[in-house]
Amino acid sequence: MNQTLSIDGARLYRTLDALGAIGGFEDPHSGLRGVCRLALTAADGAGRRHVVELMRAAGLEVRIDQIGNVFGRRAGQNDRLRPVMMGSHIDSVATAGRFDGCLGVLGGLEVIRTLNDAGRSTLRPLVVAFFTDEEGARFGTDMLGSAVATGRIPLKDAHALRDRQDLSVRDELAAIGFLGTDEPRLEAPYAYLECHIEQGPVLRTAGVDIGVVTGVQGICWHELSIVGRSAHAGTTPMSLRADAGVAAARINLALREMVASGRFGPEFRATMGVIAPYPGLVNVVPGQVTATVDLRDPDTALLDAAEAAIIAFYAEAARLEGVTIQHRRSARTPYVAFDADIQRRVAEAADARGFSRAAIVSGAGHDAQELSRLCPAGMVFVPGEFDGISHNPRELSTERQCADGVNVLLDVACALAEQAATLEELS
Amino acid sequence: MNQTLSIDGARLYRTLDALGAIGGFEDPHSGLRGVCRLALTAADGAGRRHVVELMRAAGLEVRIDQIGNVFGRRAGQNDRLRPVMMGSHIDSVATAGRFDGCLGVLGGLEVIRTLNDAGRSTLRPLVVAFFTDEEGARFGTDMLGSAVATGRIPLKDAHALRDRQDLSVRDELAAIGFLGTDEPRLEAPYAYLECHIEQGPVLRTAGVDIGVVTGVQGICWHELSIVGRSAHAGTTPMSLRADAGVAAARINLALREMVASGRFGPEFRATMGVIAPYPGLVNVVPGQVTATVDLRDPDTALLDAAEAAIIAFYAEAARLEGVTIQHRRSARTPYVAFDADIQRRVAEAADARGFSRAAIVSGAGHDAQELSRLCPAGMVFVPGEFDGISHNPRELSTERQCADGVNVLLDVACALAEQAATLEELS
Repeated sequence: MNQTLSIDGARLYRTLDALGAIGGFEDPHSGLRGVCRLALTAADGAGRRHVVELMRAAGLEVRIDQIGNVFGRRAGQNDRLRPVMMGSHIDSVATAGRFDGCLGVLGGLEVIRTLNDAGRSTLRPLVVAFFTDEEGARFGTDMLGSAVATGRIPLKDAHALRDRQDLSVRDELAAIGFLGTDEPRLEAPYAYLECHIEQGPVLRTAGVDIGVVTGVQGICWHELSIVGRSAHAGTTPMSLRADAGVAAARINLALREMVASGRFGPEFRATMGVIAPYPGLVNVVPGQVTATVDLRDPDTALLDAAEAAIIAFYAEAARLEGVTIQHRRSARTPYVAFDADIQRRVAEAADARGFSRAAIVSGAGHDAQELSRLCPAGMVFVPGEFDGISHNPRELSTERQCADGVNVLLDVACALAEQAATLEELS
Repeated sequence: MNQTLSIDGARLYRTLDALGAIGGFEDPHSGLRGVCRLALTAADGAGRRHVVELMRAAGLEVRIDQIGNVFGRRAGQNDRLRPVMMGSHIDSVATAGRFDGCLGVLGGLEVIRTLNDAGRSTLRPLVVAFFTDEEGARFGTDMLGSAVATGRIPLKDAHALRDRQDLSVRDELAAIGFLGTDEPRLEAPYAYLECHIEQGPVLRTAGVDIGVVTGVQGICWHELSIVGRSAHAGTTPMSLRADAGVAAARINLALREMVASGRFGPEFRATMGVIAPYPGLVNVVPGQVTATVDLRDPDTALLDAAEAAIIAFYAEAARLEGVTIQHRRSARTPYVAFDADIQRRVAEAADARGFSRAAIVSGAGHDAQELSRLCPAGMVFVPGEFDGISHNPRELSTERQCADGVNVLLDVACALAEQAATLEELS
């Protein structure tokens, strides 16, 4: 293998720009151009057709499955071997930038283009994939396409999901011409690689070029219903109050103290994102509050312990304020560890190119965590400017940051694609 | 004076019921009948005409001023002496019960009826008054009519106020037939008395019949704008957060600690009623929070000290959370003390009738605080059931509770109405 093969960073960035122009809008707040390609909308269809054309222009054989996942395949020297797959998603939230997901898909395409330009083939086939509705912003279920591909969600259930206008996934796939015919259950690739923006400030703040992603945090969400008594802020003595807002404040600060205690590990994160008092008037003691708690931890046992601790504190806060607190667990996903060998390869590729690197846990969900049930999977993170802001038109990774990540993707994909047939493949 | 003269509690309660049926609605939550007589609506007009008819039927001479305040006058033996005025308001919030305000007006009417039935006259004239738009729920300025009557708000400014449909006070007064011709600046009565529901739980909880109102709390309102950084709840390390929601929680608990410290006196009250995080999503660290602080204290110096203390804490919370906190003082009214002689008379009347009594500070504003700039003024509070809930169809004072308060009103009004001419009145 030619060690000096590198991708064309300028071409990659132009390709990101071109896809970002599809479904583009001008953000009224910032004046910046943003992206709105909600899954299976006309804009998503246009983006899909654009990427399919780029795949075909790069010589890839394009197949579409019944959940609309798209796979562009480049033959290997031994085309019966399982492929190395690179992928992500091109659907977006309503107020997105042009990097989230697209970097993984167009980065995979750039790897193919680079090999094509160099006249290089690989032992194993290479596949560039984009999966349907990773964001979940329209139909309510994130990582939908990859979850169907790996069998976690039945196709029938996925097809039946409906958006707020009561339009179904199946009908909308058909409407944009991406209701494919391939079986959605994916044959296990040899490995799955995903290059993605970090969507957080860690790498940029530390001045690190490449994030070696060790896994995806476990997540636990609670919806809280806190019920006290609405009362006049002037006429009600403090001793006779049952202030649901104060109870929520106590829980918010308890989360902060749980983090500070270190009891739940250095990567434990806790957030109260929703705080909605009723009636929400200056001179009325809040009688009810709806709030949410978001707990994350890469250690499942510590996440369990944190959840138990905050549930115990709900009872304490209820007692202190004379309110009732009910919680509903609205989400719970375990920690997903990425393949150790792929992590090592990502780290070595970064070192070989002179990039600084750091191990990092993904706080957000990604298609790679679905694929990890099927095959060895791993991710390469690149830093983002502006504290890594994402799901926002200000989302920005520089040409250099994107190119560094995709060069690592190139190196690891090519090395894996040269791995000889396994015993299973030979049988 | 006949010490055994007492009002007809059943008649009073029937009269409250009859007025409460005007503008009545069925509360969809409770199935209870509520009252909606927002100021200067057709329902308020109907309520006004109903009360004017009751006044005339009781022999009162009715006059209406240019802000729509209504005065029903009963001649005194010496009709040149300044009158003893009893009053309150009959406008309501949108989701009211039938006691707030109405008890003071119909209680005054009941005093007149009682004197009529007994064939009793008084040395001084008696006046029953209701003032326009005490609630401020439609045109945004509470105690509007009484503030014009006492000169705090110019008539022109009051007439120019507009509701959300851009309808003006002046036009709406004319539309319901209550744009009177009398000068709105009121000649000082000899005294002003107002019987009112407590709108809080203190008297009922303590099992006390009569509240001797010492004054109206000073009020200080702040609107807070807390600005941190919105960030992904999964990807953003705790150390890199600027969580506006946590800053708001710290302020809310600081208010609670200020109360518990006792530094601002036993009557100090502090409330965060509005807490509105942006974007308010389960997995996003709140980047901005709008919140309100409501401080009340009967001691103006202590209220000043409390305001200074919470402003100092804003800076501390901003430092702790890495956010900015701006506050705007949206209201500041000083403590209003009611006349000491009237307080003494209310207490003695309660004692003479065998009612239990307690001194109480009003946490809400009332027309009496406006009138107190013009003449000696005082209030009689009666307890409310259900923790004194008010501005709600559940608002309820029993027939007995209402009758007790109006009997005290009768005693104090009659005693004051027998006070001989002052030197000023003789000159």
